[in-house]
Amino acid sequence: MTGRGTERIIATYFVETPHPIEAAAEAIAGEQSSGTFLPVPGETEELKNRARARVEKITRLETVDSPSLPGSRAPTSNGGAVKYQRAHVVISYPFDNVGANLPTLLSTVAGNLYELSQLSGLKLLDIKLPQAFAKRFPGPQFGISGTRKLTGVYDRPIIGTIVKPSVGLSPEQTADLVRTLGEAGIDFIKDDELMANPPHSPLKDRVKPVMREINRLADRTGKKVMYAFNISDETDAMLEHHDAVLNAGGTCLMVSINSVGLAGVTHLRRHSQLPIHGHRNGWGLYTRCPQLGIDFAAYQKLWRLAGVDHLHVNGLQNKYWEPDESVVRSIKALLTPMFGGYEVMPVVSSGQWGGQAPETYRLTQTVDLMYLAGGGIMAHPGGPAAGLRGLKQAWEAAIQGVPLGEYAKTHPELQQTIDKFGKLRR
Amino acid sequence: MTGRGTERIIATYFVETPHPIEAAAEAIAGEQSSGTFLPVPGETEELKNRARARVEKITRLETVDSPSLPGSRAPTSNGGAVKYQRAHVVISYPFDNVGANLPTLLSTVAGNLYELSQLSGLKLLDIKLPQAFAKRFPGPQFGISGTRKLTGVYDRPIIGTIVKPSVGLSPEQTADLVRTLGEAGIDFIKDDELMANPPHSPLKDRVKPVMREINRLADRTGKKVMYAFNISDETDAMLEHHDAVLNAGGTCLMVSINSVGLAGVTHLRRHSQLPIHGHRNGWGLYTRCPQLGIDFAAYQKLWRLAGVDHLHVNGLQNKYWEPDESVVRSIKALLTPMFGGYEVMPVVSSGQWGGQAPETYRLTQTVDLMYLAGGGIMAHPGGPAAGLRGLKQAWEAAIQGVPLGEYAKTHPELQQTIDKFGKLRR
Repeated sequence: MTGRGTERIIATYFVETPHPIEAAAEAIAGEQSSGTFLPVPGETEELKNRARARVEKITRLETVDSPSLPGSRAPTSNGGAVKYQRAHVVISYPFDNVGANLPTLLSTVAGNLYELSQLSGLKLLDIKLPQAFAKRFPGPQFGISGTRKLTGVYDRPIIGTIVKPSVGLSPEQTADLVRTLGEAGIDFIKDDELMANPPHSPLKDRVKPVMREINRLADRTGKKVMYAFNISDETDAMLEHHDAVLNAGGTCLMVSINSVGLAGVTHLRRHSQLPIHGHRNGWGLYTRCPQLGIDFAAYQKLWRLAGVDHLHVNGLQNKYWEPDESVVRSIKALLTPMFGGYEVMPVVSSGQWGGQAPETYRLTQTVDLMYLAGGGIMAHPGGPAAGLRGLKQAWEAAIQGVPLGEYAKTHPELQQTIDKFGKLRR
Repeated sequence: MTGRGTERIIATYFVETPHPIEAAAEAIAGEQSSGTFLPVPGETEELKNRARARVEKITRLETVDSPSLPGSRAPTSNGGAVKYQRAHVVISYPFDNVGANLPTLLSTVAGNLYELSQLSGLKLLDIKLPQAFAKRFPGPQFGISGTRKLTGVYDRPIIGTIVKPSVGLSPEQTADLVRTLGEAGIDFIKDDELMANPPHSPLKDRVKPVMREINRLADRTGKKVMYAFNISDETDAMLEHHDAVLNAGGTCLMVSINSVGLAGVTHLRRHSQLPIHGHRNGWGLYTRCPQLGIDFAAYQKLWRLAGVDHLHVNGLQNKYWEPDESVVRSIKALLTPMFGGYEVMPVVSSGQWGGQAPETYRLTQTVDLMYLAGGGIMAHPGGPAAGLRGLKQAWEAAIQGVPLGEYAKTHPELQQTIDKFGKLRR
């Protein structure tokens, strides 16, 4: 351990630049600590030594012939055609510049530097933070173990679904669907991210009939469905809705983390008595351009500090743009302890129907997942209960290492699932 | 006016797709209202008619040969080489799906749609909102008129600067700088976005000496410097710091809006008795890729609703990547009334030294700006007071339509400014 004044925040970037890479790295370090476009009087050597960000490491990658992003300015004295050097750059910032302040951390490691004209590409790949952040931010309150306890599901993924249609159902129609799914044996249901507190289904009006069904079923069977109510809103409304869910016996809240923001989610975490299901809609904006934005490895650390208990990662062979290897890296990132803990449950979602279970398990070696399927449950030829059995069977096969097709020979619901939804890609 | 249930939220997008543009537009509308990858039982015709987003208009642009973003999937039955169609697409969402909920609005118009594999490019260009948003969100509390009243500056831009070095100064060193600048006649000073509440200069320790200098000077001269203290943090800390600034006689707060987030900024607005200076650091991430993200025209509407009084826009010939025409569009967007009001002051910053004043005025025809300069003030050969006079003279020349060089003949401080900082580009 080093004392106050010497600890550093470490950030790793992908950088692309028409300048010598050392100069570009120094430009980032200068901009994000003591830089201005002209030297200023107060910028003494002592202050620079104390406050300056430091380029720790540069790992050259390929060069390319054209800039990934517009607006970079090449050095004028460059002789031949401009080449754009790519590299991984590690920069460290004095903790003493920032403090354990989550928004200011983000402004430091991912602020104005995206606008630098010395760069034609910049992506924040990872961050490493001093213990002071752990001291201030308690992180996930429930995490994997707390979520398992509340759902009573162990040794397999928590199987869930999203209320569909995403929007438009009335509170009672939502409750009908919840009853059907609950009776079929589902572990988890969530509101869509589009469905928070709309005029046609105000959250408080939705909580009542939904929890009535869930509580009735729990009284009868002992199994309580976890329902993540989407309370995304401003702070006071979120806390009011937190109370409504808590008082009705609910066990989970959902928030659209990018839309609510770091301060809002932290505020909720400080007051919440329920797990926070973190939905990352909008995430494509942060990462789909390979040469701009934030990688999930860095991103998820901020939200674990803010205190989400579950976090979405897409799934293998998802319906979106994201390649499988990226999904696998995201799951592994979430399952890597931070400050020795901060456990958070990866939420596998998007186009999942069970067929991805073997590959998901093979590549991640974990069952500490939420596995959300839509049509695979509701549109199963044997009905939702059969659909759920089919999904569970797919995970049994995955865990036992038995090929799905073989396991299906003795598990008819899985066979039906495969027949209806499976174009088994491997 | 239309009644509840028929009002719509209107969003305009730049879209790029390997699919027929009509199909891609429908994919967005479906994803962001009632879509799932398989039809589901509850999705009745009645519900669809009521809840479905609608493609209102498609304006074809050029086609390109390669996708701007990775992960798009072309239709398989396409005969020849894949072409990527670009277009402007207008989609309307039923207000009844969303309600006057700022985070859920963002999740609706700028959520999962960035991840659609039907698209190889998506940028939210603009949004148009029903009156219900105005009813719930009071917006800027001070705006342009309130800021002019607090600073006592009329009929010209509010001239300001940023404390530099960005980080590392002690509270007393900061106060020394503030005294120097205040005595020189500055209107406005702000903390850097990197400088919030760090161990080496805790906000409360900084407020005291800074406000001591500002209040002393105000007692003597009647002019009170507006200082924007960077209170970016979690909600409780922001309110605590709001109180500290207010109690010391301060007149402005600054927040890093992207880092704090919509719910956090709205929370501050609901409690604040001071103007909120909105710093958009991180903005490059949202917009520097031309085929991804959010355009400022849409972005600024969200933050005006959230209640910022000032908002950064870079400046002409800035040191960053952003082209002048984009800066001009941003200034005009901020000065366009929203719901007949929501006035917010554009903050022109980055590499400004006075030389950009004529072109800024010519292109925007406004003096309702904050104009922030760094070295142009502190490094002026005649000292900061002369630097400020030079800046004000530059704006006088701009407003009067007199070329800078000519005006400088009778205004020596402006001449010195030009000699030292000016490579007058036009």
